[in-house]
Amino acid sequence: MSEIVKEHRHEYLLSVAECNAQQELPLTAFAQRVIAVATEHADILGCGYTGMMKYNLAWVLSRLTIEMKRMPRANEQFALTTWIENFNRHYSERDFEVTVGDEVIGYVRTIWVAINMETRSPGDISMLAELASTEHDRLCPIEKQGRMRPLTAVDRTEQYVFRSCDIDFNRHVNSIRYIEKVLNQWDVEHYDAYRIARFEIAYQQEAHCGTCVDINVAQVENVADVEIKGQNGVICRSKITFK
Amino acid sequence: MSEIVKEHRHEYLLSVAECNAQQELPLTAFAQRVIAVATEHADILGCGYTGMMKYNLAWVLSRLTIEMKRMPRANEQFALTTWIENFNRHYSERDFEVTVGDEVIGYVRTIWVAINMETRSPGDISMLAELASTEHDRLCPIEKQGRMRPLTAVDRTEQYVFRSCDIDFNRHVNSIRYIEKVLNQWDVEHYDAYRIARFEIAYQQEAHCGTCVDINVAQVENVADVEIKGQNGVICRSKITFK
Repeated sequence: MSEIVKEHRHEYLLSVAECNAQQELPLTAFAQRVIAVATEHADILGCGYTGMMKYNLAWVLSRLTIEMKRMPRANEQFALTTWIENFNRHYSERDFEVTVGDEVIGYVRTIWVAINMETRSPGDISMLAELASTEHDRLCPIEKQGRMRPLTAVDRTEQYVFRSCDIDFNRHVNSIRYIEKVLNQWDVEHYDAYRIARFEIAYQQEAHCGTCVDINVAQVENVADVEIKGQNGVICRSKITFK
Repeated sequence: MSEIVKEHRHEYLLSVAECNAQQELPLTAFAQRVIAVATEHADILGCGYTGMMKYNLAWVLSRLTIEMKRMPRANEQFALTTWIENFNRHYSERDFEVTVGDEVIGYVRTIWVAINMETRSPGDISMLAELASTEHDRLCPIEKQGRMRPLTAVDRTEQYVFRSCDIDFNRHVNSIRYIEKVLNQWDVEHYDAYRIARFEIAYQQEAHCGTCVDINVAQVENVADVEIKGQNGVICRSKITFK
């Protein structure tokens, strides 16, 4: 391990060109920054991409929970601060605070699993045990992700085939792209009227270029459940609370 | 005008999380940075979003031409340097050089038109005449974009309906999303075998959330022409030279 840096902070300026129709940072671009900042911190701690490669391992995002009072707006400077809440030999829990100046506008919880690059199955990370010393006692005041249950009733379904621009470094569908497919189930007018108070996604399987999926949506009042399902079962499950 | 800064440079570190299946910066993310760096320079010159709003105008990307020897690779530091080649009362030509250390890996040419925010038609920018003094004598050694002609024969067509995540700050389809739809016409294996030596796109009309389009592809050897066509005609035309 390179150095014990318990917190890592990255400041961003939100350019107009990156905004969505609500003139805010899109949730997809926000999640991308969450992953980038996590990667930066892991690099600093010596367990980033290069550090993990030594063991033929790679971090894979398993769960992501975002709770925002509001999103950063056009031309606003915002910061993401990340720390490790918990590290054990199976996974790592990493939290984030989102601020604009002194104002805390949201929190994020993530769970990362190390997978073996060849077998794509969870790897043993006990040799990184010293990372436990990077655990921070800082609190993340949002609820942990609950268990995501299979949809009992489906209100609507859309089919989609993943394409080349959906694919990441590991030749699987990029984590962000699933979020995009989920959010695309509502149109621009819906996002004018409602904001996303809480967003949860649990990744269960990997999809590839050409994978054909059903995107199933079930909505009860302001809570929507979305599952993306391939031929071999559920790929990810998501829950959105609109306000 | 705030200050005469004839060149603007922005350095980036390419994180693994941002890479595509070829472990390089995707062309879409590259184009997004081109737009971001142009916006930063315009802001410095006082003719960014806020500066233009005073006249009820906004810059819209009209043409984009990218010629790369190679793309930035994972964990590589690269820089975009931009300057104005030509400024007149109808449009502005802005060029970019892309470097990794001392190595020049590519060039970009862009043409920007100022449109009236209400009518969405080209606006008069003669009051920005002093911007002409920011013109740089620096050369951009790639060919200007040629005229993009209608496809005479179509090899294949795909239909697509633009969704909420495709929409930008101005409530139109994001310029990057058209590039994505064009690139998605080839699968991952194609991009393993061929790299994009030159990419050109000319934006002709704006599309909205819900706009249904035909994506028409015609390919002769290593040159492909793609047009995205809505009910009211061509939305954009693109030409790709594979190598």
